[in-house]
Amino acid sequence: MTGFSLRGTIMHTPERGTCDVVERALVEVGADGAITRVLKPDDAEYETALEEARTAGRLTELSGNQYLLPGLIDLHIHAPQWPQLGKSLHLPLYDWLQNCTFPLEAKYADTAFADRVYGSLVSSLLANGTTTAVYFATAHLEATQRLADHCIEKGQRGFVGKVVMDDPEQCPDYYRDASAAQALDETVAFIEYVRGLDGNGSELVRPIVTPRFIPSCSDDALSGLGAIAHDHKCHVQTHCSESDWEHSFVLDRHGKTDTQSLADFGLITRHTVLAHSNFISDPDMDLIGNVGAGIAHCPLSNFYFSNAVFPLRAALNKGLHVGLGTDISGGHSASMLHACRYAVAASRALEDGVDAALAAETRGRANARIDFMEAFWLATAGGAQALDLKVGRFAPGYRFDAMLVDAGVEDSSLLVWDDLDTAEDVFQKIVYTAERNNIRKVWVDGIIRLDKTA
Amino acid sequence: MTGFSLRGTIMHTPERGTCDVVERALVEVGADGAITRVLKPDDAEYETALEEARTAGRLTELSGNQYLLPGLIDLHIHAPQWPQLGKSLHLPLYDWLQNCTFPLEAKYADTAFADRVYGSLVSSLLANGTTTAVYFATAHLEATQRLADHCIEKGQRGFVGKVVMDDPEQCPDYYRDASAAQALDETVAFIEYVRGLDGNGSELVRPIVTPRFIPSCSDDALSGLGAIAHDHKCHVQTHCSESDWEHSFVLDRHGKTDTQSLADFGLITRHTVLAHSNFISDPDMDLIGNVGAGIAHCPLSNFYFSNAVFPLRAALNKGLHVGLGTDISGGHSASMLHACRYAVAASRALEDGVDAALAAETRGRANARIDFMEAFWLATAGGAQALDLKVGRFAPGYRFDAMLVDAGVEDSSLLVWDDLDTAEDVFQKIVYTAERNNIRKVWVDGIIRLDKTA
Repeated sequence: MTGFSLRGTIMHTPERGTCDVVERALVEVGADGAITRVLKPDDAEYETALEEARTAGRLTELSGNQYLLPGLIDLHIHAPQWPQLGKSLHLPLYDWLQNCTFPLEAKYADTAFADRVYGSLVSSLLANGTTTAVYFATAHLEATQRLADHCIEKGQRGFVGKVVMDDPEQCPDYYRDASAAQALDETVAFIEYVRGLDGNGSELVRPIVTPRFIPSCSDDALSGLGAIAHDHKCHVQTHCSESDWEHSFVLDRHGKTDTQSLADFGLITRHTVLAHSNFISDPDMDLIGNVGAGIAHCPLSNFYFSNAVFPLRAALNKGLHVGLGTDISGGHSASMLHACRYAVAASRALEDGVDAALAAETRGRANARIDFMEAFWLATAGGAQALDLKVGRFAPGYRFDAMLVDAGVEDSSLLVWDDLDTAEDVFQKIVYTAERNNIRKVWVDGIIRLDKTA
Repeated sequence: MTGFSLRGTIMHTPERGTCDVVERALVEVGADGAITRVLKPDDAEYETALEEARTAGRLTELSGNQYLLPGLIDLHIHAPQWPQLGKSLHLPLYDWLQNCTFPLEAKYADTAFADRVYGSLVSSLLANGTTTAVYFATAHLEATQRLADHCIEKGQRGFVGKVVMDDPEQCPDYYRDASAAQALDETVAFIEYVRGLDGNGSELVRPIVTPRFIPSCSDDALSGLGAIAHDHKCHVQTHCSESDWEHSFVLDRHGKTDTQSLADFGLITRHTVLAHSNFISDPDMDLIGNVGAGIAHCPLSNFYFSNAVFPLRAALNKGLHVGLGTDISGGHSASMLHACRYAVAASRALEDGVDAALAAETRGRANARIDFMEAFWLATAGGAQALDLKVGRFAPGYRFDAMLVDAGVEDSSLLVWDDLDTAEDVFQKIVYTAERNNIRKVWVDGIIRLDKTA
């Protein structure tokens, strides 16, 4: 492969709070999958580069209905809960966990079941434009290896974690690690497995150390995982201060916040992703910010399981690294564009408040709202920053992870009115109205991984 | 036409808070478009009825991936704002209204523009399964007539209103009724036009008296419209206590609440639909409940323009008639299934509160949440009750307005796992994950109005 060039309208958000839309842009991608140049029509080299690409037969031109956007980065997915997407959400948390989620996760002792579900999941996320996915798998080593295999096979950039949950007080007998020692051994085995996978070029798929959350782990497991993350230079993910219950549980058990406790176990690093973090304090934020750890804001599932909206604006103002997650299946959608929409809605609910019986000035928290540009930034460049990856924007040196959005498909919810909509309007319409069927091609690391036009 | 029968899985919510799912149900529809019988496999007449329908060649059998649900009822749509769906939502309300929405609505002085937009809108709503739509048009008589024409032509059950907005203080010079008298004359002319339309069988399309809201209308216009609604036995729609601003404005101008003021103008009747009503007081609720007026809860647009969540549970507990609206384009989606999802999210935000800095017990309003069954009831049977229509459920005597949902389409977000999902699970998955491309056929008044399988 010698690389290729794409010409058409590109839309991305390299800087938070603004958007960059270029019509007739020329994006050059090298043989190694990295972007080499992004040219605008008035750049001096544009015409020559265009002609060269055309002559070399490596130019693809987008049609007027088509738009090229960065691939979406989903920072928080419970892969085994995929069959449960959009169901059981009417149940209280305890029933949801004990009667639905844990029994479902326990099924992954069967690797054939894992293959069936994970194949569907990875394909569906790619079909939604998710080019990077951060996965909690289950406590099972083999099934978790299968998830990594599916990511490699389908070409999705993935962080995959074997879940550690060894505390007999909080985890069911039929579904937990037998001991802290075994959980740690299997975590190391999993890291080595993923790093040795055939075809894992550019570290497309990486292992991630994954204590489920403090309540389900023994202190031995937590400190052991902190050491493994350090020794193996490995990413970390866990849940942090998601709900009133979780936040209080950790305060009771360790006499400090979730964030502080995780930090003391060595689990908060530049390469950590903390899911939710709705109840983090100001000192927690400072700690997270100083280390440069990331937060996976999951606005949709927060409406169901979190008792509050993540204080996103406060976190962004402190310079924290924040991205978005679907939190499948606590969230009922696999679409990161849906996550963008719910992130805006949640931020506005926080700003204005929700209870009309309260006076306007006491109802919400001023200046909390984000707009579509900030939401899309979270879903792309922000997520990339949290993961320390060079993806999520169109710029030289960044990996080419992208999706082609087409407004001209049958049954499109995305409608463009050529005489009424500016290119910036179309960008906003994509964020607010595009659905899975508008996403026609997906590239990861410069390679087409899904082509619905074929 | 001699009627027809459908056999397959039906899913509906005739009683709020429960769902009724029947596999291999037999639904018989008469030549007049009304449901005559709904039989379950263990009903005594089932086998005979099935055999008769089969012999007569009037039986359609759904496949295992297909589900029959009532058509969706959208109680609040600004038809002229259709080209603006999903854009301009980053702007403050004043800019949104003055720089985007009013200039757009003014374009409908051109009926060719109206034809172009309204044709697209009615088709798109049908494609989303919306069988009944309650429309604000614009202040233009002719363009509003064209919207009624498009509903008739495409077979959508519609309530269409010429918007009245005559107050020079609040409406722009380039877009308002010239006088109260002209607004009233045109309202009567529109009522007569719609009632005389060719092909308006079963009153498929009806006129609806439509003061935009109190701030944009003179008292003369408001009292005149109240008289017209009474004299012409006509439905009424308007906005009511949507935001802090609107609620305060009416208190200042009339010294009473929106609801009380509208009632005093004769605008609150059994056939009134009040959009939003977020800030209605307890006495307002009692007034609305005593009259049997309806409320169009628009959860998605409320996140953008309303400063609070509608106190749905309180309204339902008082027995008010409530349904859902998309509020295009204050809401960014044409899908009433999306409206269901945002209704659940909003209700949970109200219950739990949003600001993590507050103590849990002071953060929200207890018992506010609804589940998917109540949301779907609002979008079907609840909306029908608000409009006083016999639609929204599968029962003898009800009009057959329905949609066929198919989980087997390409690029489906709705995934069914036959060995893991009960039929009730599938119902929940449809409410939470089905998209426009899952809706394959739509019937209104017993006639197929859209068939994507053809």
